[in-house]
Amino acid sequence: MVFSRYNSSHSTAPSAPELPPESYHQPQQQQYQSYYGQPSSIYGQSGGFPAGTQPDVVRAFQMVDRDRSGFIDEHELQQALSSGYQRFNLRTIRLLMFLFKNPYDSLRIGPAEFASLWSCLGHWRAIFERFDRDRSGKIDSMELRDALYSLGYAVPPSVFQVLISKYDNGTGKAGLDFDSFVECGMIVKGLTDKFKEKDKEYRGSATLSYDSFLCMVIPFLVSYD
Amino acid sequence: MVFSRYNSSHSTAPSAPELPPESYHQPQQQQYQSYYGQPSSIYGQSGGFPAGTQPDVVRAFQMVDRDRSGFIDEHELQQALSSGYQRFNLRTIRLLMFLFKNPYDSLRIGPAEFASLWSCLGHWRAIFERFDRDRSGKIDSMELRDALYSLGYAVPPSVFQVLISKYDNGTGKAGLDFDSFVECGMIVKGLTDKFKEKDKEYRGSATLSYDSFLCMVIPFLVSYD
Repeated sequence: MVFSRYNSSHSTAPSAPELPPESYHQPQQQQYQSYYGQPSSIYGQSGGFPAGTQPDVVRAFQMVDRDRSGFIDEHELQQALSSGYQRFNLRTIRLLMFLFKNPYDSLRIGPAEFASLWSCLGHWRAIFERFDRDRSGKIDSMELRDALYSLGYAVPPSVFQVLISKYDNGTGKAGLDFDSFVECGMIVKGLTDKFKEKDKEYRGSATLSYDSFLCMVIPFLVSYD
Repeated sequence: MVFSRYNSSHSTAPSAPELPPESYHQPQQQQYQSYYGQPSSIYGQSGGFPAGTQPDVVRAFQMVDRDRSGFIDEHELQQALSSGYQRFNLRTIRLLMFLFKNPYDSLRIGPAEFASLWSCLGHWRAIFERFDRDRSGKIDSMELRDALYSLGYAVPPSVFQVLISKYDNGTGKAGLDFDSFVECGMIVKGLTDKFKEKDKEYRGSATLSYDSFLCMVIPFLVSYD
C-alpha cells in the first residue's frame, strides 16, 4: 500500500500533525500587515495566536520577541523552545524554521506558526517518550523506525538504512536523543510533504523537472553559518 | 537547451571534472583487498595512487594515514586537505567524502579517491580565483553563478535564488569564501549527477518513485555530529 507511506488521509496509519495549510497562513498574514505602524496593538487580544493557545506558549513567544515585532528569528526560536522543551541544535532549529515558516518571510516565524510548531513538538515528544521505554533519553534504530511509523511515516527499509547510517557513526547502532529524532523526523516529514505535492494521485511516484527537483531539495541542504 | 544544464557530453559548456566511474573503482577495490594481511606492502610502488599522481598529493595522504590502512576518515581528510588547500568546514568535508567515497566503504576514502578529489579541488580553486577578481577571498552572487557555469552547471534562476538565499543571511547579497563555494558547488554537482542517472535521455525531467527520491536526497542532508 504505497500511499500509506505518505501519511495521507487515505492512510490507516495514525496521522502526524499537518503543517498549517496556506489558507491558514493567509488571514494571519493580513493580520501581520495590519500591525505595521501599530506596534502597541500587536499583543492585543489573541496577539496573533490561534484561539485556545495555551498561555505558556504565548509567554514563551513573547518572552523572546523583545522588539515586539510579532516575529522571531532562529536564535529567538531556539531560546523560546528551551522553556518548554530543550535547547535544540541550530541545525534542527533551521529545519523547523524552514518547515513552519511564514510563507512570506523565510527568516522569521510569527505567533500562528510558533503555536503550530509547539504543538507538533509536543506530539513528537509524546511519541519519543513512548518508544524510549527505558527512559534513557535515547531511542535506538528499531525504535526510531517504529516511532516514525507512529507518526504516519512508513519509511521503506532501503531509505531507513540511508537515514540511520547518518546517525550511527559507522557502528550500525544509533542512539538518537530527542534533538536528533526531531531532525530526522522533520526531514522525512518535509521531503514526504514536498513529494506528495507532486504526486497528486498518490501513486508513489512523480515526474519532476530538473529545476523543480533542485528547488524541492536545496532548501533542506545548505545553510549559512 | 535543457541538457546543457547537466554538464553532459552534449553540452558546449566546459566540463567539470567527473567523479571516478565505477569501473575505475573496481580494480582499486581489488587492490585494497589484496592488502589485507599485508600491511607492509601498502605503500609499495604507487601505493594505490593512479600513475602520475603528484608526490605532494601522495605525501598529504600518507601523512594523515597514520595506521597505514590505506584509508582515511573525515577528520584525517580535513587535515590532509589543509596541507594543499585550507582547513575546510566539517560539513564541506562530509559532502566531499560522500561524493568521492569508496563505494564499498562510505566512511573512509582511499588513495585513488583522494587523488581524484585533490585534482577536482585544484580545478575548482582555479575557477574560484578567476572569478574573485579583486582577490578578496570571496565571490559574490553573480560571480558564483558565472563560476558554476564555468564548471558546466547552468543553474536555472529559480534554483539559483534558493541556493543563494542560504548564504546571504537575508541580505540579498552573498559573499562566499572558497569553503562555501566548494560546498555550494558540490551540492549542485552531486544532485545534478544523481538526477542525470535517472534521466538517461537528457530530457530535463525524470520519473522518480518516493523511495528512490528519498534515497537520492537523504545522504546530502543529515549528518551525525
